Amino acid sequence: MIDPRVASGTRDILPALAIQRNWIVTQFKDTFERYGFVPIDTPVLERRAVLYSKGGEEVQRQVFEVAARGQTLDESELALRFDLTVPLARFMARHVDELGVPFKRYHIGLVYRGERAQRGRYREFYQCDFDTIGSRSALSDAEIALVIHDGLRAAGVPAFTLRLNHRKILHGMLDSLGLVEQSGHVLRSLDKLAKIGRGPVLAELQFGERRQGGTADAVSDPADENDASTGVIAESPDAPASAAESDRILSLDNAARILDFIEAAGAGRPSAVLAQLDKQIGSNSIGRAGLENLRTVCGLLLAAGVAEESMIVQVGLARGLDYYTGMIYETMVTGHENYGSVCSGGRYDDLAGLFTDRQLPGVGASFGLDRLTQLMADAGWLKSSSTIAQVLVVNFQESDWPQFVKIAAELRAAGIACEIFPESTPLRDQFGYASSRGHRFAVIAGPDEIAANAFALRDMTTRQQQKNLPRAELVSRVAAALQTPNR
Amino acid sequence: MIDPRVASGTRDILPALAIQRNWIVTQFKDTFERYGFVPIDTPVLERRAVLYSKGGEEVQRQVFEVAARGQTLDESELALRFDLTVPLARFMARHVDELGVPFKRYHIGLVYRGERAQRGRYREFYQCDFDTIGSRSALSDAEIALVIHDGLRAAGVPAFTLRLNHRKILHGMLDSLGLVEQSGHVLRSLDKLAKIGRGPVLAELQFGERRQGGTADAVSDPADENDASTGVIAESPDAPASAAESDRILSLDNAARILDFIEAAGAGRPSAVLAQLDKQIGSNSIGRAGLENLRTVCGLLLAAGVAEESMIVQVGLARGLDYYTGMIYETMVTGHENYGSVCSGGRYDDLAGLFTDRQLPGVGASFGLDRLTQLMADAGWLKSSSTIAQVLVVNFQESDWPQFVKIAAELRAAGIACEIFPESTPLRDQFGYASSRGHRFAVIAGPDEIAANAFALRDMTTRQQQKNLPRAELVSRVAAALQTPNR
Repeated sequence: MIDPRVASGTRDILPALAIQRNWIVTQFKDTFERYGFVPIDTPVLERRAVLYSKGGEEVQRQVFEVAARGQTLDESELALRFDLTVPLARFMARHVDELGVPFKRYHIGLVYRGERAQRGRYREFYQCDFDTIGSRSALSDAEIALVIHDGLRAAGVPAFTLRLNHRKILHGMLDSLGLVEQSGHVLRSLDKLAKIGRGPVLAELQFGERRQGGTADAVSDPADENDASTGVIAESPDAPASAAESDRILSLDNAARILDFIEAAGAGRPSAVLAQLDKQIGSNSIGRAGLENLRTVCGLLLAAGVAEESMIVQVGLARGLDYYTGMIYETMVTGHENYGSVCSGGRYDDLAGLFTDRQLPGVGASFGLDRLTQLMADAGWLKSSSTIAQVLVVNFQESDWPQFVKIAAELRAAGIACEIFPESTPLRDQFGYASSRGHRFAVIAGPDEIAANAFALRDMTTRQQQKNLPRAELVSRVAAALQTPNR
Repeated sequence: MIDPRVASGTRDILPALAIQRNWIVTQFKDTFERYGFVPIDTPVLERRAVLYSKGGEEVQRQVFEVAARGQTLDESELALRFDLTVPLARFMARHVDELGVPFKRYHIGLVYRGERAQRGRYREFYQCDFDTIGSRSALSDAEIALVIHDGLRAAGVPAFTLRLNHRKILHGMLDSLGLVEQSGHVLRSLDKLAKIGRGPVLAELQFGERRQGGTADAVSDPADENDASTGVIAESPDAPASAAESDRILSLDNAARILDFIEAAGAGRPSAVLAQLDKQIGSNSIGRAGLENLRTVCGLLLAAGVAEESMIVQVGLARGLDYYTGMIYETMVTGHENYGSVCSGGRYDDLAGLFTDRQLPGVGASFGLDRLTQLMADAGWLKSSSTIAQVLVVNFQESDWPQFVKIAAELRAAGIACEIFPESTPLRDQFGYASSRGHRFAVIAGPDEIAANAFALRDMTTRQQQKNLPRAELVSRVAAALQTPNR
């Protein structure tokens, strides 16, 4: 016997979860399509030359390499993609002349990372990305936030906040301080502010993250579905004892000025934070450009009907990806902030520079599909059922099978998903099947019912039966019963 | 610069094709769900011990092996699945107690085969399987054919034939001839009858397929999406000169009797072929059991409303998979038989014997998704468009962006997919964008229109404009225009 277990870091998805996840995906797809985003597909199996072109060192170390049986890894050029962004860059470089710009695509697909397996982290998982390529317009920026908003509404998330920021506001501040060179380091440190607080970030700004003693964890990236952990970085006080002055990256003054700027601006309703930023930024042209872009985006969101209460401008929002150059998006579900962001992204200047001379700016975000599914299931916002069919046609005796098949065909033609129990087993077993799967009703067409032309409909929840339904009314009575709320 | 090409045997799917394929998948999913099949998902990355348990030698040679970067292949236990059947067997063995039986699942997912790349054959492709596990009922057999029927109808295939057969009819005939031992060989040979004709099959039955001189091609299996070729086996006359009497598998008499049986039964409407088989089978109990099962299935299909013209009983239909033990299904699109079967499958006695002691019989089939998409596109049955949004809101000047965003939000709230051109570029460019993507209408809200509160709607096909639409009527007028047929 072969052990039927799955490989470490992978999982089987049983029907109840698959139904929930498919339902959320359908809401997202519908939303993308309502905004004119179109689907594409690219291979999971890519050339290593493509995959090794980009992505952080951490991600590069986690690539899975592939070889046809009988080949060695060195004889093959293949690997499994680790995100949908590098493939998008390759895809755009290859097809941009045919596609034209602006080009708005969504892509839901599997990606792979050879992480050490641990609870809630998978080596095979889905990403759900959407991007507008080839436009620098603030309208495209606003649209990304609108898709997040409409997508979560469609999925039935009752309350959430769009957290917005603009990289140029931070860059402008660093420009004023003469610290543009250190911006990568500063952004990576700032990204932890909400998690670990001012003290540790102040130390890290001065001496770098390796000095912190805590785990040098990558930024929580909902795009990769995999980092459901938050707040895992150990608290640590100011500068560690081991920090030597020679290792200093920023002066205490500059580190404090950075944090003062962010804390003064704060995080809150766009109107308040934008007004405050207007004072703080002064005449720095980079900062002003960022502020105006952010102001336009917030104005468009309000115009589209997004409530101001569901928007937060949060100047500390940095997101560690060096890649972003403009708008930054995160999304927190109200009351469930501990799950981290369920949709994040930003604007970038140059998607595909490694593959083409053509500069392709863009803006996009990625839903954390597995994380959101888990959050919504935990919150009780998802219907849980192991069946999609709502009606079971009970199977009495083989000689009546043609009757059952006819009844089922009529129900389906009326748009009612139903199944016939395949065997003429005791009624108790068939009701057990319906109860355990979650069918709402059972159609009872036994020999007596067929002889009397008087059928019965059993409510599987209440166990009550409507009796004496004439055959001609059976479908309409089932349809009517399904309209009543499920207790 | 890195070459943005894809790996050999893989492909990018551009929006026009992705939209068509997604549409067909949606029709199939809806059909599966109307019949009570539920989705599952299993990892693409499986343990080699699982994958190497089953599947033909040819398929085994084509497995892709996987290792995390820095590992050798020998240090890893991972490989990419080559079908959805072995994973289903593992899945059922692992979860059957939780799932219960009967269990009806569908699964649409990627599979991998390291075939030599050639036109129309891919190394990464989708399978689309549906199976009922844990029931031996003829009702389940009939349901598989009904799903094929309803799925193709939903996808808009105008005419097709369900080709039906039963393995036990062939086994009964071989039993009568005392040739049960040779049944694997006989079935593999018979499978080529429609392609290569009586003469070559007669020779092959006697001397085996290696003697044929033609390519020893595997059976055309739409389940694997990949074998779009048919009729590729070279014609060759009777016994090849090289055949020696010592290599003989069947006598000429027995080979001829087999073919005589099949030709006498023929292929045609169930009523005629079943009546003929009733005479031919005589008292052989295996054959009679197969005939009765097949008769029940055909009766249930008729009861469900399937036209007899779309059913063909074809006794020569063998399908080379040793695995099948009962009903056999193939599906030909009328007028496009050269594409081969677009949905095939059958009944099996023991799905998961390698993983569990529990015997799990089942019946299922697999849509050839890529093949069917190609066939339907070639036949002109699929709408071709690179957009899903039907309306473009033309972008005049940045100061009116909030107006455009409001109009778009109202259109979307009315269920109309639309997009705003993201930049205020010349009108010509924006119309060019809409024409090339396939938007039907453009909403024109320029400064003059906004000032006059009189908007315009441009039909992108006819280039005619409806003018002077009041703002309050804009959405309803767009909705009405979309109701008119597209020229």
